[in-house]
Parts: sequence; structure tokens; C-alpha cells
Amino acid sequence: MNFLEERIAKDGVVKEGNVLKVDSFLNHQMDIELFDEMGAEFKRRFANENINKILTIEASGIGIACIAAMHFHVPVVFAKKSQSVNLDGEMYVAEVESFTHKCKNQVIVSKKFLSPDDHVLIIDDFLANGYALQGLISIVHEAGATVEGIGIAVEKGFQIGGQVIRNLGYHLESLAIVESMDPAAGTVNFREQD
Amino acid sequence: MNFLEERIAKDGVVKEGNVLKVDSFLNHQMDIELFDEMGAEFKRRFANENINKILTIEASGIGIACIAAMHFHVPVVFAKKSQSVNLDGEMYVAEVESFTHKCKNQVIVSKKFLSPDDHVLIIDDFLANGYALQGLISIVHEAGATVEGIGIAVEKGFQIGGQVIRNLGYHLESLAIVESMDPAAGTVNFREQD
Repeated sequence: MNFLEERIAKDGVVKEGNVLKVDSFLNHQMDIELFDEMGAEFKRRFANENINKILTIEASGIGIACIAAMHFHVPVVFAKKSQSVNLDGEMYVAEVESFTHKCKNQVIVSKKFLSPDDHVLIIDDFLANGYALQGLISIVHEAGATVEGIGIAVEKGFQIGGQVIRNLGYHLESLAIVESMDPAAGTVNFREQD
Repeated sequence: MNFLEERIAKDGVVKEGNVLKVDSFLNHQMDIELFDEMGAEFKRRFANENINKILTIEASGIGIACIAAMHFHVPVVFAKKSQSVNLDGEMYVAEVESFTHKCKNQVIVSKKFLSPDDHVLIIDDFLANGYALQGLISIVHEAGATVEGIGIAVEKGFQIGGQVIRNLGYHLESLAIVESMDPAAGTVNFREQD
């Protein structure tokens, strides 16, 4: 197990319905030393990519993206999930629909902050069915920018998001890929990675 | 002018109605090198405080808080602005009402992540009338924890939030305090600080 898998095994909480709670260190309380280690690992895994901007989505992607940016020395742009009064001017808006929840969400980025010159690393905390990620990719394409890579903290490998993104040919790196969870035993099984 | 005031003067955009847009470097696109300088300055200004946790609020406080946490070597907790399905268990909820907008917002933190042992530095990007900040302070008190300090990037000194918080005796440090703005000239005047 790598450092993040070990932390999930130690402090993650498995609940019924394939729910994995990592709110004590990843997405409500945030362990910044862990984030720093994750940032270094993203830098290692994307060492061959030419990245000049990190794109993430509010709220729980922001911390991971900002600490990772310390390793890449690039600015971060975070997408907003719904129309905000502080966003004026021209915006990229991707409408993403959840197959399971039948709800539509908007992913929004100001046009000022993505251009054809941008080589983007997308970072988020979780990848399950991947609707938010699909919206982010759509916006990068709409801007004429390039998706150089996608870095995820925790991928639910038993849901479809990761497979779709890999089938599409994107360089997707998930630091921990959960294959299965056992809520009775409280255990998490991870996919083997090189 | 200090480094943040200089950046605001250079890249901030003044609009009618006392609106200051800093979305190119602070709260949509985020300049991580600037955040690192801000984190170092917060550490200098709160060097005498015993801080073991940083508390902020989604979404635009998170990046500043996380980079500052690299200087304090403490975890970050971010408050959520409305009830989230991922938050279960016991929560601290502060209801804050905007005098100007007559709307109520909830500020929410899981009880797991604030306790009487915590000595908290509150960090946020903006302080104007201070409703979100009042909710955060209320939650720290409800948890029996201690507010050791409050670090703000940009305070609107012509609105009431900062004065109220200083009157209450909190150690509030704003890296830039805007005294007035001129939308016609596009200029920003800052309060002198030591």
C-alpha cells in the first residue's frame, strides 16, 4: 500500500451503500502534510507533462489542488458549481447530468482564466461516476486548451468514471483506487498499481 | 504598500458599488506564489499565538488557508455553507443573517473536528460586513475552542465587519485594508499599517 492507501485503511470509515468517509483528513478536515505528499506524488506521476495551470472544482478539490500547485509552480483555477453573483463577464458553462440522481449541475469557469495557451492538469479529491470531471474536461476543450493529465486522490474503481476517462485516452492518475469495501469488517481493498 | 496591496493596485479591478474584483489572483484564479507569501506574513503576524488548527469557509477561503497551513504545520478545517449530504453525525451550525440582504445562511462544521483543545486561527479571503466570520467565531465558541487570531486577505475598511471584530477584542490581521475606491480612476486607497 502507498501512503494514501495506508491512511485510508487507518482513518477512512466504510459505510453501507459503498460510502467511504475520509472527512477527517481529506475533504472536511484536511491534513496538509498528507496533501504535500500527494502533491509530490502528482508531480512525480506527471513529470513528463508540460503543465502551466491546475484546474479543480469547489469545494473539496481546492485544497489538494493548491498544495499540488506548490510542486508544479503554476496557478490554480477553481470551477464553480452554480452561477455566482461574483462571476461577471463571459463564462464557460458545462451542464452535466447525473445518470443516477437525474439532476443537472453547472460547472462554471470564467473565460479570462482558460485559453488555447493553457496546458491543464485537472485535480479533484474523488472520482466515482465522473460527472464533475466530464464537465471540467468539456470546459478545457471549449477553451481550446489541452488536458495534459488528470490527478485524483481517491477513485472508486467499481464505478464507471475512471474507466470511461481511460478509454478516452486521458492520462488519469488516481493515488488510491478502491476496488471494494466491506462495511461489516470496515475494510477497503485497493487496486494494485505500479 | 506591502506585496498584497501592490498586487491589488496592479491587478484588482474597481467597479461601481464598492466592488473590488480580485478574481485573477485571489478567488477564482489563485496565484499560489502570492498565497505562499501571504502564509508567511500570517505566520509572522501570529508568531506569538499558540495555533493548532486553521478554520476557514468554502470556497474561496480554502486555498489561502491550506497554503498558510504549510507555514503553521497544522490541519485545516473548512466550514460548509449549507447542509451537505456528506456531512453526517453531529454538527455545529451557526445561522448568520445578512443585514443588507435579509437572507439567512448556515455555517456548518462537524463536531468531530473542533474541540476544547483547539486553538484556532480563522482565515478567509474577504472581510466586509463579516457575517460568515461571525458564524465561524460562534462555532469555535460553541465547541469550547479558542479563537487565537483571525487572518484576512482583503478587508473592506469602510464596512463594519473589521471594526466590530476589533471592538470585541479579537486579534484580527488583514493583509490589505481598503479605505476607499474610485471606480472612475480605477484606484484603491489602503489604510496605513505598521
